[in-house]
Amino acid sequence: MSNIKVELTKSPKPKPVDESKLTFGDVFTDHMLIVDYDEGQGWHDARIVPYGPLSLDPAAMCLHYGQEVFEGMKAYRADDGRVLLFRPQENFKRLNLSNDRLCIPPVDEEFMLECLEKFVSIDADWIPKAPDTSLYLRPFIIAVDPHLGVRAANHYLFMVIASPVGPYYPEGLDPVKIYVETKYVRAVKGGTGFTKTAGNYSSSLKAQYEAKEKNYTQVLWLDGVERKYIEEVGTMNVFFKIDGEIITPSLDGSILGGITRKSAIELMRGWGMKVTERRLSIDELAKAYDDGKLEEAFGTGTAAVISPIGHLNWGDTKIMNINNGEIGPVSQRLYDELTGIQWGKVEDKYGWTVTVK
Amino acid sequence: MSNIKVELTKSPKPKPVDESKLTFGDVFTDHMLIVDYDEGQGWHDARIVPYGPLSLDPAAMCLHYGQEVFEGMKAYRADDGRVLLFRPQENFKRLNLSNDRLCIPPVDEEFMLECLEKFVSIDADWIPKAPDTSLYLRPFIIAVDPHLGVRAANHYLFMVIASPVGPYYPEGLDPVKIYVETKYVRAVKGGTGFTKTAGNYSSSLKAQYEAKEKNYTQVLWLDGVERKYIEEVGTMNVFFKIDGEIITPSLDGSILGGITRKSAIELMRGWGMKVTERRLSIDELAKAYDDGKLEEAFGTGTAAVISPIGHLNWGDTKIMNINNGEIGPVSQRLYDELTGIQWGKVEDKYGWTVTVK
Repeated sequence: MSNIKVELTKSPKPKPVDESKLTFGDVFTDHMLIVDYDEGQGWHDARIVPYGPLSLDPAAMCLHYGQEVFEGMKAYRADDGRVLLFRPQENFKRLNLSNDRLCIPPVDEEFMLECLEKFVSIDADWIPKAPDTSLYLRPFIIAVDPHLGVRAANHYLFMVIASPVGPYYPEGLDPVKIYVETKYVRAVKGGTGFTKTAGNYSSSLKAQYEAKEKNYTQVLWLDGVERKYIEEVGTMNVFFKIDGEIITPSLDGSILGGITRKSAIELMRGWGMKVTERRLSIDELAKAYDDGKLEEAFGTGTAAVISPIGHLNWGDTKIMNINNGEIGPVSQRLYDELTGIQWGKVEDKYGWTVTVK
Repeated sequence: MSNIKVELTKSPKPKPVDESKLTFGDVFTDHMLIVDYDEGQGWHDARIVPYGPLSLDPAAMCLHYGQEVFEGMKAYRADDGRVLLFRPQENFKRLNLSNDRLCIPPVDEEFMLECLEKFVSIDADWIPKAPDTSLYLRPFIIAVDPHLGVRAANHYLFMVIASPVGPYYPEGLDPVKIYVETKYVRAVKGGTGFTKTAGNYSSSLKAQYEAKEKNYTQVLWLDGVERKYIEEVGTMNVFFKIDGEIITPSLDGSILGGITRKSAIELMRGWGMKVTERRLSIDELAKAYDDGKLEEAFGTGTAAVISPIGHLNWGDTKIMNINNGEIGPVSQRLYDELTGIQWGKVEDKYGWTVTVK
C-alpha cells in the first residue's frame, strides 16, 4: 500500500454521541479518499486526506452533463471488533459496468478496493457499534473538465466518503406502503437503468415525491415500453413470493443488478427454494393476489437490506394487502441471514465477507 | 436592480486575442452570477462575483444524484454595438419546466432574466465581434445539500457562467454525417427527455462516441418504445423536407422543446411553408428517400443554430445521401434569417430580440 499517500486530519471531528439516533448520510468521517484521472496518465495519486470541500470550476462537466457514477456499500463492526465489508469486489465490478456505459475510464478494481480498505482502516473508529448501524461507504466518480461542449471528459475524480448510518427507513422492518407508478418511467432498455449513475436518481424524484404526497413510502416502477412489467421498487430490487415460488424481474438492461439481490437469490436457492428471474407483469401480480397466492413482497438494497412490502396500490382501484401488512417468513429469514453475515454473527458459508486489516 | 450585489474582479483575465480561433465552451469571462436557494427562504442573495471555483461538499447531492438543470443561450454583438439576446424569456420558461420535472423549486423568470442581463452588461467586453462568434451563456441549477439519501434537495445554487464561442461544429454549415442509433435510447415518455437535465446528456455519450468511431458526427435518436420514430439528432431537434413539406417530430414528452426549433417553425410558417409536427418513422423517411422525395434534413439548436444533414446511415445497409451532401435552400434561408435576427442584421419582425442595457 506504499502508493497511497495519507494525510491525517489535525482537527478530528466529534463522533455522533447517541448512535441510536443516527440518520442516513448526514454526518461524514474525518477523511476522504481521492484518486485523479487525467487523459494520457490514467488513474493516479491515490491519497487519503482530511474530509473537506472540493474546489470545482463552475464549468466542471459533472455539474452540467451528469457524467457521474457511484456505488453504495457498508463497513460493519463485528462483536469481536473486526471490521467487515460485504462482497466489495462486486461493487467495483459494477462500478466498471457503470463506467463503461457512461464513457468513464475503467478503474483497477483490485487497487481501488485496496485504497478503500486503507481508508476504512483509517476511519475505523467512525464505524458505529449500536444495533443496525454501520459505516456507509460512497465511492463515486465525477467528470471535472471545465468545458461546455457535450463529450466525455478527460479528467475525473474517484472518491470515497463515509457516513455512520442508522437504518435507511426509520420504520425499520415494518412493511412499507408502495404506489404502483403508471405516469413516470425510471428507465428503458437502451438507456442507463442497469447502472448506478446520477441521472437515474434525479429522474425518479418526482414519482417519489408524488407517492409521498399520497402517503406512500415509495413507488413500484413498471417498464418504459409496455408499461406493465415490474422493474424495481424505489431504489431497490423487488421480489415476490407467489404460490411458494420466489419471482424477481430478470436483468434485461433497465434494472440495476443489486448485490443484495444477487445474495438473496443465492441464499434462497441454497435453502432449497425455487427462485425464478423472469418478467412479471402487474396484471399477473394482481391476479395472483386475487387468487390468494401472493404470499410476500420485499425490496432488497444495500441501504435497507430487506424492506418488506405490506401494501400495494395500483391505480387507486386495486389495493393489495400482502401478508396482512406484516413481514413474511422469507423476508425475515433473509434479513436475519444477510445482516447476520454482514455483522459477523452468522457463519459466512459463501465467503462473502472481507475483513479489513 | 438594486437587489443584485456586484463585486467586480480585481484581476481581469486577458481576452482571447484571435477571435477566429474561438472554440466552444473552453474560456470563461471575468464574472459569474450566483443566486442561493434555501428551504423556507426561497431564492435569495443574487450576486455577480469574480469567476472562480465553487467550494462544494463532496456529499453535495448534485455530485451523486444528478439533480441539475441548465439552459443554453447566447449574447450577440450587433454591428451598431448593441448587445442582443434571443428570446431569453423562453429559456427561463423552459428552465422552470425542467425544474418542475426535477423537483427543483421554480425561479422568478423575470427577476432571473434581469440578473442575467445585468451579468451580461458587466462582462459585455467579452462578447466577441468576429463573424459567427457570440458569448454563450450557461444558466444552471445544482443541488448542494451534503446528504446521501435519495430525495429532492433543500439547498440549490442558480448560476450563470459565460464563454466567448466560435461555431459549435468546426465544419460550420457543411452538412454532417449522421448515424441512425438503434442500440441506445436517449429518452422515453414518462422520463426526462423534454427537460434540459444532466442525465439526458451523460446517457447519450456512449452512442455519440460509437458514432464518432465510425466517422459520423452524431446520431439520430429513435424513440425508446417502438424504436422507430425519429426524435432528435445529437443534442438538436431535427427537421426533414419531404415532397415540399417540412416535418419535425411532435413534442410528445421525450423530445426537448427547442427554442431554435420553435423559431424555425414560426419563420417557415411565416414564409408560407407547410410545417407539420407529427410522428415520423425511420421507415417512412427511408421510403421518402427511395421515392426521391427527401429533399432536405437539418438539426436546430442554440449552439449550432442550423446544422444541415448530408448523409444518414441506417443500420449500415441503408445509406441516404441528402441533397447531394450539400446544404439545402431551406436550411440556408433559416440559418441566414435566424443568425441575421440574432446579430441584428435583419429586421426582427417577431420581436424576438432583447437589447441588453
